[in-house]
Amino acid sequence: MGRAEATKDRILEAAMAEFSAFGVAGARVDRIARTAGCNKNLIYVYFENKETLFTTVLEKHLQRVYSELAMTPDDLPGYAERVFDFAMANPDLMRLMAWANLEQQASLPARAAVHKDKVAELAKAQDDGTLRATFPPAVLLTAVMTLATAWTAANPFGPSLNPDAATDPDALRKNIADVVGLISRAD
Amino acid sequence: MGRAEATKDRILEAAMAEFSAFGVAGARVDRIARTAGCNKNLIYVYFENKETLFTTVLEKHLQRVYSELAMTPDDLPGYAERVFDFAMANPDLMRLMAWANLEQQASLPARAAVHKDKVAELAKAQDDGTLRATFPPAVLLTAVMTLATAWTAANPFGPSLNPDAATDPDALRKNIADVVGLISRAD
Repeated sequence: MGRAEATKDRILEAAMAEFSAFGVAGARVDRIARTAGCNKNLIYVYFENKETLFTTVLEKHLQRVYSELAMTPDDLPGYAERVFDFAMANPDLMRLMAWANLEQQASLPARAAVHKDKVAELAKAQDDGTLRATFPPAVLLTAVMTLATAWTAANPFGPSLNPDAATDPDALRKNIADVVGLISRAD
Repeated sequence: MGRAEATKDRILEAAMAEFSAFGVAGARVDRIARTAGCNKNLIYVYFENKETLFTTVLEKHLQRVYSELAMTPDDLPGYAERVFDFAMANPDLMRLMAWANLEQQASLPARAAVHKDKVAELAKAQDDGTLRATFPPAVLLTAVMTLATAWTAANPFGPSLNPDAATDPDALRKNIADVVGLISRAD
């Protein structure tokens, strides 16, 4: 890795921590520069402005999500378990997604496209008969994603109300899988 | 209503719109003053600082939630329908709760206390046998609240991914009630 690439990586890492804690409006570029050990102007040279830096950080991490978390329409409980494990292991990314949702609603075309593809996959599974058609595919997907991530800081009805909720993640993972099982098997 | 009270009300209304759109860090007190048609200094006289103003606005609206939305442990699907209707009718409040969750996690003692009371109510209903004890009461409550509010802007997996999801709120309300029915009747 060249020196410029190493610096960019340090900036992205520092930006992840800063944006996760404070969002776009609350983040300070000079704090990111200090954490990354670089000149503040260099951040503007590499990433244009604070908003572009945020989008770059978010998209970098979402690429990881898309490649690691394939949906399995014929096993939604198993998918929910994997989403739960990923979400609990990546609290900073969950906060980043929550900030993006509030601060930059128009700037998530990649996520909306992935969502649309997943809805189409579920619709196909329902047509093929490998998944029950009791609930519309978009409702199923929203329910699964929302339940699987309900115990992260992205949810206003999550751990901020009940900090002890996830002390036993194995029990919680099983509860979530059972709920998703009920929903996906319902007739 | 005295003139001071009327001014305070205008400030709270303007603050609701500003905080809902931009959160605490992004909100501008001078914009709130302009919308409320008052002097910026008056806001500091009445509400101390931006953070206190945010907390005042949030608590005022949450009081309304607590008085209008009583939980019914023996009818969780009906409760979920009422939470859904309230959440869809109050998008600004849902955004406010999402900002509070990200920006001021330590400052929600009232909400945490209400949550604890509701968990105790559900535990009692399970002890009495009016509610199945398949899922722990805290898991039930988080699932119900999260599903009932999943189609609001507070959810990063909600309308920002699928803006058309709530075009038929009657169908969606029924889906949510059916899902909560499955969860609360599961054995």
